[in-house]
Amino acid sequence: MKLTAKEIIEDLEFVRAKSPLVHNITNYVVMNSTANALLAVGASPVMAHAVEEVEDMVGIAAALVINIGTLSGHWVEAMFKAARRAKNKGIPIVLDPVGAGATPYRTRTVRELIQTVPPAIVRGNASEIMAMVDDSAKTKGVDSASATEAAMDSARHLSQQLGGVVCVSGETDTIIHKDKMVLIRNGHALMPKVTGLGCTATALCGAFAAVEPDFFRATAAAMAMMGIAGEIAAEKSSGPGSLQVQFLDALYNMTGADIEKRLKMA
Amino acid sequence: MKLTAKEIIEDLEFVRAKSPLVHNITNYVVMNSTANALLAVGASPVMAHAVEEVEDMVGIAAALVINIGTLSGHWVEAMFKAARRAKNKGIPIVLDPVGAGATPYRTRTVRELIQTVPPAIVRGNASEIMAMVDDSAKTKGVDSASATEAAMDSARHLSQQLGGVVCVSGETDTIIHKDKMVLIRNGHALMPKVTGLGCTATALCGAFAAVEPDFFRATAAAMAMMGIAGEIAAEKSSGPGSLQVQFLDALYNMTGADIEKRLKMA
Amino acid sequence: MKLTAKEIIEDLEFVRAKSPLVHNITNYVVMNSTANALLAVGASPVMAHAVEEVEDMVGIAAALVINIGTLSGHWVEAMFKAARRAKNKGIPIVLDPVGAGATPYRTRTVRELIQTVPPAIVRGNASEIMAMVDDSAKTKGVDSASATEAAMDSARHLSQQLGGVVCVSGETDTIIHKDKMVLIRNGHALMPKVTGLGCTATALCGAFAAVEPDFFRATAAAMAMMGIAGEIAAEKSSGPGSLQVQFLDALYNMTGADIEKRLKMA
Repeated sequence: MKLTAKEIIEDLEFVRAKSPLVHNITNYVVMNSTANALLAVGASPVMAHAVEEVEDMVGIAAALVINIGTLSGHWVEAMFKAARRAKNKGIPIVLDPVGAGATPYRTRTVRELIQTVPPAIVRGNASEIMAMVDDSAKTKGVDSASATEAAMDSARHLSQQLGGVVCVSGETDTIIHKDKMVLIRNGHALMPKVTGLGCTATALCGAFAAVEPDFFRATAAAMAMMGIAGEIAAEKSSGPGSLQVQFLDALYNMTGADIEKRLKMA
Repeated sequence: MKLTAKEIIEDLEFVRAKSPLVHNITNYVVMNSTANALLAVGASPVMAHAVEEVEDMVGIAAALVINIGTLSGHWVEAMFKAARRAKNKGIPIVLDPVGAGATPYRTRTVRELIQTVPPAIVRGNASEIMAMVDDSAKTKGVDSASATEAAMDSARHLSQQLGGVVCVSGETDTIIHKDKMVLIRNGHALMPKVTGLGCTATALCGAFAAVEPDFFRATAAAMAMMGIAGEIAAEKSSGPGSLQVQFLDALYNMTGADIEKRLKMA
Repeated sequence: MKLTAKEIIEDLEFVRAKSPLVHNITNYVVMNSTANALLAVGASPVMAHAVEEVEDMVGIAAALVINIGTLSGHWVEAMFKAARRAKNKGIPIVLDPVGAGATPYRTRTVRELIQTVPPAIVRGNASEIMAMVDDSAKTKGVDSASATEAAMDSARHLSQQLGGVVCVSGETDTIIHKDKMVLIRNGHALMPKVTGLGCTATALCGAFAAVEPDFFRATAAAMAMMGIAGEIAAEKSSGPGSLQVQFLDALYNMTGADIEKRLKMA
């Protein structure tokens, strides 16, 4: 399965033209940088988490992004409410299982959430994706040759279970939808030194899924945008502080030529 | 009604000399950028939202800024408590009705807040200001020639109702106090691509109102500061990431000569 | 008591080599900048505050940083839970008493916290440290020649009470452990114009205490890192906006030669 640079460019143009409202229930650490990245790519961000209003906010949004990075009781309640409304309304839900596997509370919350309302897209790192799959399922992967393969097994299992797209991000981003798979090899080693770029990636998946009904393609487009903007930014940066700044500028100024020239998709 | 560059410069000097403590009950997205902008302009920011302490914090503050951008139950309770204490103490309250009109919860909260404790200054965009005025009042504006005029009608109505200053910000910022009006035409098209610069404007209104008892003039000074700093920053920026950084530097380094040269007030 | 540049460099190398997980229960304003500073210095940050999970998160962390900058009921409950678990597990607790003395709620919370679970390190400014010591203790300082001396008296008293390290930060940072004292004279006048660099200092104390069991030395190393990175950053900055960016780059790129050349420790 291979997408083309032309398709990625077309999706970016959709985001910029339609400026979809992306409703984020996300963590405190990344709210500012996530909102700025959504603006830079051309979308309209809104953050809202009160149980009193999340359903109304979903009602005017084009995608819902749920990120459990600093979860607590009331927020989890709001995530469930918002997710149910999004499902009824038919807008895509994108889930970022930050820290799944690190504490039982996170693992349990994520598993309950996907059983109640399966998201259209899940994006996490290898250990988070593996933690989302229960242990009986994971035993199928015990003979995997490596940790990476074990994560791929979990991702495939999760995609089948949800009927949705699963993105395992890392040095290479792997995007899986049932029997389809695409790899994005863009990005830069300095990116993990900036907090919340993974959360930004998830939010961009929301922006692209809001305008591109093929969620596999939308996820690939978002991850390509992240990696290419990160590369451009790293060339102009002297460390993680400047990378964050240059990253937003690069997203904002991204051209079709940048994408054609740099895209490493397989 | 026209203010002079000299008055704006004088107010900036007051802020820098007195470094007023500005108490913010604001949204998660902008807390960091708001605090940094208040420091850059010369004020002292404090963020505090616990019902256990908001009254005590108001007790040592020179202005109270309330921003409903990520409101929820406990925060709304704290906003009312803090507002009542500010009114009793006699320090200015500045209100940012973020997202009023987007959800009933926001619209209702803002309307109850201004009925309970009328703020000295309200700053919002056109749709937020219009949402603050109830529908019976708005029918007076149905024959308005344009959306802008409808917003001006709402702003005038709101100013009469509150006896306070209303600022409708946008490409041109319109500041209304009963029958007085002033326009600020500074700013740059890249500014809306940075999240929370509207919230920053509201916080600066708080800093200026803390030292300038003529709140109409204080609001004009704050909005002029925003627009001029944004212009200076945009000239040194390659996108929204660098704009945020340059904006803080521009606020910090703002001179009387910058204001005299650039101010577009009518 | 004097530490050497060599010891500071060794500790920085420990942090980079071990990348300790630092669990922060901190304020909304600084979560992003704190996480970025921890990453830049080589540590692994995690933010988690839910009572449902703080004990589990402490269970995998190498240090716990508690910062009361935007405290409220549920957060305080989580701070106590996390602190008790950290004490039982034997990992260092670092406390930042943001705003102690500004409201009774903050002063009371901090005093109860240190009585329940004495932290290994406390870092605050002079007024915060003085507010932590109760009034009967403070009467011992009434004949102090100056406010600075009064703060030193409080710091010494607090260090004896806790058996821990107390750092009073300011133009000169004073680090006290019972009868030992070291002064760091690095830093730059622009640093207080960036919100939350004090909170960043506290978090770095956590990163160094996670790998250096001599907490007096760990605190000195963290404060030296702050001051030296601030100096390097200020030389490349045109205001507080660029300082924040350059500061992260400077932390990330800090070399042994930078430390040897710039360290002003007495």
